[in-house]
Amino acid sequence: MKGLLFQQGRLRLARDLPEPSPPADEVVVHVRLAGVCATDLEIAKGYMGFEGVLGHEFVGTVEAPERGALHGSRVVGGINCPCGVCERCREGMPFHCPARTVLGILGRQGAFAERIALPAANLVRVPDGVPDEEAVFAEPLAAVLRMEEQNPFAPRDRVAVVGDGRLGLLAAGVGLVKGWRLALVGKHPERLDLLPGRPPFFPPGGAPASSFDIAVDCSGSPGGFAEALRLLKPQGRLVLKTTVALREGADLNRIVIDEIRVIGSRCGPMDQAVAFLAEGRFKPSVLTTARFPLSKGLDAFSAAQNPGQIKVLLDTAG
Amino acid sequence: MKGLLFQQGRLRLARDLPEPSPPADEVVVHVRLAGVCATDLEIAKGYMGFEGVLGHEFVGTVEAPERGALHGSRVVGGINCPCGVCERCREGMPFHCPARTVLGILGRQGAFAERIALPAANLVRVPDGVPDEEAVFAEPLAAVLRMEEQNPFAPRDRVAVVGDGRLGLLAAGVGLVKGWRLALVGKHPERLDLLPGRPPFFPPGGAPASSFDIAVDCSGSPGGFAEALRLLKPQGRLVLKTTVALREGADLNRIVIDEIRVIGSRCGPMDQAVAFLAEGRFKPSVLTTARFPLSKGLDAFSAAQNPGQIKVLLDTAG
Repeated sequence: MKGLLFQQGRLRLARDLPEPSPPADEVVVHVRLAGVCATDLEIAKGYMGFEGVLGHEFVGTVEAPERGALHGSRVVGGINCPCGVCERCREGMPFHCPARTVLGILGRQGAFAERIALPAANLVRVPDGVPDEEAVFAEPLAAVLRMEEQNPFAPRDRVAVVGDGRLGLLAAGVGLVKGWRLALVGKHPERLDLLPGRPPFFPPGGAPASSFDIAVDCSGSPGGFAEALRLLKPQGRLVLKTTVALREGADLNRIVIDEIRVIGSRCGPMDQAVAFLAEGRFKPSVLTTARFPLSKGLDAFSAAQNPGQIKVLLDTAG
Repeated sequence: MKGLLFQQGRLRLARDLPEPSPPADEVVVHVRLAGVCATDLEIAKGYMGFEGVLGHEFVGTVEAPERGALHGSRVVGGINCPCGVCERCREGMPFHCPARTVLGILGRQGAFAERIALPAANLVRVPDGVPDEEAVFAEPLAAVLRMEEQNPFAPRDRVAVVGDGRLGLLAAGVGLVKGWRLALVGKHPERLDLLPGRPPFFPPGGAPASSFDIAVDCSGSPGGFAEALRLLKPQGRLVLKTTVALREGADLNRIVIDEIRVIGSRCGPMDQAVAFLAEGRFKPSVLTTARFPLSKGLDAFSAAQNPGQIKVLLDTAG
């Protein structure tokens, strides 16, 4: 089968990938649509030590086993595959299982291919009313919902989302639907048109210092952490969503002096993400700016690195 | 009066300091004993932009006003003097009042002098059973207690205290009394003899990675943050107690990937600190390794920078 393979420091389209042949508790999913995320770009730069097929945001159809309960269902899937028996798993932290594999990121072939294997337990059915073009956003949407799963925001909290790229706009869209007292910090004011509301918009450095209770760093840029820190009131909360190779200019002493809480936040609840999409109050597909067939996957990666693009999709039909 | 003055980048003993002449809501305290802290050393290196009399850990006797309720009382005092009317103060964060002064740190003459002024509301009476030599530790002790004021530790939490200097040993002593499942990371195993118990002791890099629920960085050293981060389990909590001019080798991406919470923590409840001292289950005076008269204050600062010293006191009687 076809797939986008990162190997020996190089990304290429492979046409002879082995078909997945999973163990009994896993199923084979035919990938319908997949999304390119900042993590994929980082992996393709060689920053994360992964070799294999990339991709972890997808919607697909269950192909095998043929007699399984999910056969034929349209699904999205959680990307973490824990061992289920270790201390972390028993402590209720399966996403932090040290023996886990992660779809397209760690020890498991990813979704920029015609088919993938995942544990049946990871899959969530997509309701008929949610088209593929929305469902493909379930994974990053779950990551946004993770923030409030960790610590609910209070109604009076002023929230700054730092970054108006893929994840920042998704977080802003979610926040507007949920009634956050939101401001967006970014470089593309024209992107406000994509959101279900018009939050205040500031360029980096433009919003008043020490004026937010919560700042979410979705910037994926070296300076995002420092900007989020600058925006926070004392005792404020900095939610760190993105990994970047370097961080610039952040004075960690401000964390002590102003008693800031920095909360790392990663993968979230896929079932809640699907439920959010089914509500239809914010349609993430407005963030899709390009769609390529899998056979043009290298072009998709080039496009995704262009700051003018927001979400780039891969369509395995082509 | 005499005092240790930091001015124009230089610390000196001044003999002609003006006596404090405070407003009506403040009192004059004769300083009996004062403690040198890492923050004083940082200020004396010019890192914090403060000029004036240093010192913020003290025990003293209220001298004026003569008809005040506290006259003649032996007291310790909170170091933050908020405005009381701004948004932060009204929100219940007076320690973060942007107009605050801080004893010997920000806009207010400090306790390495014969007398200081502080708001009466900041003072806590010291019970007769608590000698000056213990009471002088009330301020850093309150800072240790602040950690659980922010977020109580659970009985099953494994806690690593990183740093076996002044603050680390104080935190370890408190933790042993409170029943924390404690380990100490440091460079001076012989200092375990000072503690009310024998916790496991590791050199930096020596304790198993990802094995603690809570890590407290009391190191005051550039590598302490990275060591604390290394020790934490996923979803663990890193309490940051010390400010340092630089930090080395910390990979902030681990905060995201392992969903670590970093909690900045500063000043704490003085009344609780005095109550802890009154219990007498851990006597911080065991950490005092040198005591100088105020007139030898420069020698005290030299001594305090020697890693062989733990707590250095200044006695205003001399």
